[in-house]
Amino acid sequence: MTEHTTANGAGTRADNWGRWGDGDERGAANLLTPEAVRTAAGTVREGRVLSLSLPIRGATSSRAPQTVPHLPGRPLPQHFMSVDGADYCAGARRMHGEIGVADDALILSHHGTTTHIDALSHMWRGDTLYNGHPANRVRSYGATRCGIEKAGPIVARGVLFDVAGHLGVPHLDESVRIGADLLRATAQAQDIEMRPGDVAVVRTGWPTVYDTDRARYQAGQPGLTHDGGLWLARHDITAVACDNAGIGALAMDGTFDAGPDEDLHLLLLWKFGIYLVEMVWLEELAATGRHDFLFLAAPLAVEGGTGSAVNPVAVL
Amino acid sequence: MTEHTTANGAGTRADNWGRWGDGDERGAANLLTPEAVRTAAGTVREGRVLSLSLPIRGATSSRAPQTVPHLPGRPLPQHFMSVDGADYCAGARRMHGEIGVADDALILSHHGTTTHIDALSHMWRGDTLYNGHPANRVRSYGATRCGIEKAGPIVARGVLFDVAGHLGVPHLDESVRIGADLLRATAQAQDIEMRPGDVAVVRTGWPTVYDTDRARYQAGQPGLTHDGGLWLARHDITAVACDNAGIGALAMDGTFDAGPDEDLHLLLLWKFGIYLVEMVWLEELAATGRHDFLFLAAPLAVEGGTGSAVNPVAVL
Amino acid sequence: MTEHTTANGAGTRADNWGRWGDGDERGAANLLTPEAVRTAAGTVREGRVLSLSLPIRGATSSRAPQTVPHLPGRPLPQHFMSVDGADYCAGARRMHGEIGVADDALILSHHGTTTHIDALSHMWRGDTLYNGHPANRVRSYGATRCGIEKAGPIVARGVLFDVAGHLGVPHLDESVRIGADLLRATAQAQDIEMRPGDVAVVRTGWPTVYDTDRARYQAGQPGLTHDGGLWLARHDITAVACDNAGIGALAMDGTFDAGPDEDLHLLLLWKFGIYLVEMVWLEELAATGRHDFLFLAAPLAVEGGTGSAVNPVAVL
Amino acid sequence: MTEHTTANGAGTRADNWGRWGDGDERGAANLLTPEAVRTAAGTVREGRVLSLSLPIRGATSSRAPQTVPHLPGRPLPQHFMSVDGADYCAGARRMHGEIGVADDALILSHHGTTTHIDALSHMWRGDTLYNGHPANRVRSYGATRCGIEKAGPIVARGVLFDVAGHLGVPHLDESVRIGADLLRATAQAQDIEMRPGDVAVVRTGWPTVYDTDRARYQAGQPGLTHDGGLWLARHDITAVACDNAGIGALAMDGTFDAGPDEDLHLLLLWKFGIYLVEMVWLEELAATGRHDFLFLAAPLAVEGGTGSAVNPVAVL
Repeated sequence: MTEHTTANGAGTRADNWGRWGDGDERGAANLLTPEAVRTAAGTVREGRVLSLSLPIRGATSSRAPQTVPHLPGRPLPQHFMSVDGADYCAGARRMHGEIGVADDALILSHHGTTTHIDALSHMWRGDTLYNGHPANRVRSYGATRCGIEKAGPIVARGVLFDVAGHLGVPHLDESVRIGADLLRATAQAQDIEMRPGDVAVVRTGWPTVYDTDRARYQAGQPGLTHDGGLWLARHDITAVACDNAGIGALAMDGTFDAGPDEDLHLLLLWKFGIYLVEMVWLEELAATGRHDFLFLAAPLAVEGGTGSAVNPVAVL
Repeated sequence: MTEHTTANGAGTRADNWGRWGDGDERGAANLLTPEAVRTAAGTVREGRVLSLSLPIRGATSSRAPQTVPHLPGRPLPQHFMSVDGADYCAGARRMHGEIGVADDALILSHHGTTTHIDALSHMWRGDTLYNGHPANRVRSYGATRCGIEKAGPIVARGVLFDVAGHLGVPHLDESVRIGADLLRATAQAQDIEMRPGDVAVVRTGWPTVYDTDRARYQAGQPGLTHDGGLWLARHDITAVACDNAGIGALAMDGTFDAGPDEDLHLLLLWKFGIYLVEMVWLEELAATGRHDFLFLAAPLAVEGGTGSAVNPVAVL
Repeated sequence: MTEHTTANGAGTRADNWGRWGDGDERGAANLLTPEAVRTAAGTVREGRVLSLSLPIRGATSSRAPQTVPHLPGRPLPQHFMSVDGADYCAGARRMHGEIGVADDALILSHHGTTTHIDALSHMWRGDTLYNGHPANRVRSYGATRCGIEKAGPIVARGVLFDVAGHLGVPHLDESVRIGADLLRATAQAQDIEMRPGDVAVVRTGWPTVYDTDRARYQAGQPGLTHDGGLWLARHDITAVACDNAGIGALAMDGTFDAGPDEDLHLLLLWKFGIYLVEMVWLEELAATGRHDFLFLAAPLAVEGGTGSAVNPVAVL
Repeated sequence: MTEHTTANGAGTRADNWGRWGDGDERGAANLLTPEAVRTAAGTVREGRVLSLSLPIRGATSSRAPQTVPHLPGRPLPQHFMSVDGADYCAGARRMHGEIGVADDALILSHHGTTTHIDALSHMWRGDTLYNGHPANRVRSYGATRCGIEKAGPIVARGVLFDVAGHLGVPHLDESVRIGADLLRATAQAQDIEMRPGDVAVVRTGWPTVYDTDRARYQAGQPGLTHDGGLWLARHDITAVACDNAGIGALAMDGTFDAGPDEDLHLLLLWKFGIYLVEMVWLEELAATGRHDFLFLAAPLAVEGGTGSAVNPVAVL
């Protein structure tokens, strides 16, 4: 399958992974040429920094984790303090009699619960991962092929397809499917010119629905079609970031509504090795009116991880 | 205490935290002016991207987590797959009969176990956090003052003080203390010019000791002195990043060897609101010979967290 | 408050906790006299063993955890394999080339999610725990007073108040409140004679509702009234076990419907030091027609725990 | 393999597992006949209750978990409070203005870290579990064959082989191997008469070594030989409980020192379906001088678990 080649050339992904990892998995490297990185840095014109992340709300003595958009049936983040300021109020001994320390722990199943990036080991068809790596190397103790630590940080030019803005609505309805035509029209209206290595950022506005109607958020969701995904992939992009929960659309029963031949994860992750950044928050970014910027997303270097929670950044 | 003001001016930290958080904690905002962000972006001359993170090696059926530098007595990362490629080999049903999915979970206590950034709620003296916030707001369900979500992403100019390189050794010995004089000499030798808002990156080379002598790594460590920290702080920096485990030095019994008046965490985090990025990996960066670059560290937006694991990035 | 004495005499709780714990907390010892233990053992007439536990269904790649009765808004059990048989199918190396091993991990927040026992540190009024222990000793690193490890195993005579059976219904409606009169009538009809040290097991049948109507299960629940709880406490019992989620009733909004003066937890746990075993499964036990038996519940010895998941046993 | 039959007859294991589990796995049922349960209850002569559990010391802001005997390289217990008494000291709002609640969470990898029971899915040879169940049913989402929930509670007669006591030492040396001859001699000296269905409890005294020499505890350990295990199995027992970490002995490098043909787990768990209770604490029990008693161990009903932490009880 010809798509199973590196989309963006040789790349200069972080060399030092070879120091810690097995270092022999060049096929998964999917990052930019030095020239593209320089172009990305050149998009910084204002010096403004925006986070594109939902909050991770994990305190567990309340329903707080449920107040953040998420898919149902997933373990929500848990956040615990192992020592905190309250303990000192209650009489705990301070270091040197004066110093207070707070320490904590985080439990995270990132898919469907928070802003995250999918590794190439997250989804596949048949018995092989992206680029022909055997899927049986994805085991209980981690993915020794295509783990998220192989991605390295994404430092690229971001382009915002503000589809909701283009259609003049606060958010797309759950029935809306974003195909190539709609992307093309949005690009034209918003003066978006794509370049190899870009991160395509697609705004549906869907997370704003969560505030007013949680059940609606968790039923159907608007999203890209196979045709729309293919159009993006043909532009030789590094990643797709979207503010819905799964890049593709969700049917009204909360499941992905495409079969294997139409599935966006298979198309982008598996065929093209294009990383997916899901559940991003784009409202402030859209409000700036900017459509190109420096996009940064540095997944935690979890060896063998199927992805990582991430705090993506736009520098305008 | 005059240090309890924002070090770097008004800042343009990610506005959208106000959307999710309480939004009234401007005092903790410690990020750069637009001009400084533009300057930082301007340091990208080659287009090369380097991760400054240790791996997170969390598979738990083996001693793998112990092969990564860490302080003793801390819970090491745990990484679990809830479904993986091996399950399909064993007969698990695939989606649509063809699609495989891998999903995982991560348990992380980041202090002392992996590359991370400390929140301003991590350490304090007496009853108040940085900028006078009450320490009793740091409770079991998280820090409602100075949590890591208040930091927002750090996008700044990085400057590398390669102290080990300056002294011509692969790593400093555990007895070495890095004071203002040594920093000044390193800066001069390496042609480092500091600017307000910079991230000072200090290389001791200490993590390389772990490969050959784990016990030695976990006993004493080289690090900054109070005098060295103060010299950095006086340059109005945003953060200090160091490849040792605690910015300051560790005595031979593995404890911080400074009392409250000399403690680096109190000096930098608490007095100046300067973020600390600990346990970074600097070997490839040092090998480049570059001493200024775009430094990025975007902590996970864990509400009330005392810090976050992070994959810091240098763009050269 | 006179209730703040040991309910059942000197007790012979497991001596060896003193080996590991601080050993000076005799006030919390609440177990039986040797005579009562012998009486309990004497109730074994058939030699039949029944578990009174709900399953812990924690696999996390599906909605399985949601298929077990639980209160909403609580983190459900998570269960992970760190190595398993599927990994060997996929090619993992076996020990000695032949031996397979499976290993796992469990994450559990037991209150409201599974069959468990509450420690005396779980709930209190004002600033003191049961028996006057200071509540400020219950800190982020555990309860150094009244932790679940102080309970030791409960080995007692169990008596079943099959209230649903007495009323001839498969389960009580959510509006039913079990007061002293109803308990007394049930005892008379079912020939129950209480003795000091007994565990009072109360059946509402409510968990059977979960199969057919999850939302109904999680709204209101039938349960004991203050008056009913007091009647049990006056019989000098060791524990109350009930198949609802909180011993007391839940109002239709899912909250406990009693104020502090009527709250069952405060009455039983805090005033009398009577342990509470919640979310037990009583359907098979009720079907036997037996109303006295040997009751066993041995909480995990979690130092400083607010309770423990438990697999209670009836030996008939 | 003839050993692959149920050791103790038809059994009366907890019927209600069929309610929740798949109910078709009768081959794994390994519990006692009603007569044997009655005999077990008949051993209660004094009415004294002893826990045989090590503490679970999981607070994670200190090295507390390391103070309890455990094997190296395993994730130690983690215990977190999600709300506690200290939070109220610090100003947290109480329920109804008066009521305090403490809640917690536990993370547990029980093998090698605390007192626990092994499921029949924990270890096997080749491709089949005990009784011919396919090992490929042990997957990332749990063991659908031979999970610990299939065991049900163990309620049996316990017999104590106090080997250390028999040899007149506080603990066996790490080089001691307990074979059939030594068991036979101990039984004779301690007047132990075995019966079908018994739990054989074997005391080495090894955990007491941990207090004075942690490294020694974690290197070699005394334990049963294949010959000793076979002798026990021939008595048609339900379980073996031992105070060492793995029933069999550990060589001085901390690994099991037997190959597949001699391995105690394979012999007992896999060939005979005899449950293993490991890391029990027997010091107080040994001091009583009693050698028969009612033994209780009720594993948490973790569906698909490879075992469960447990608080075993001896009722004398």
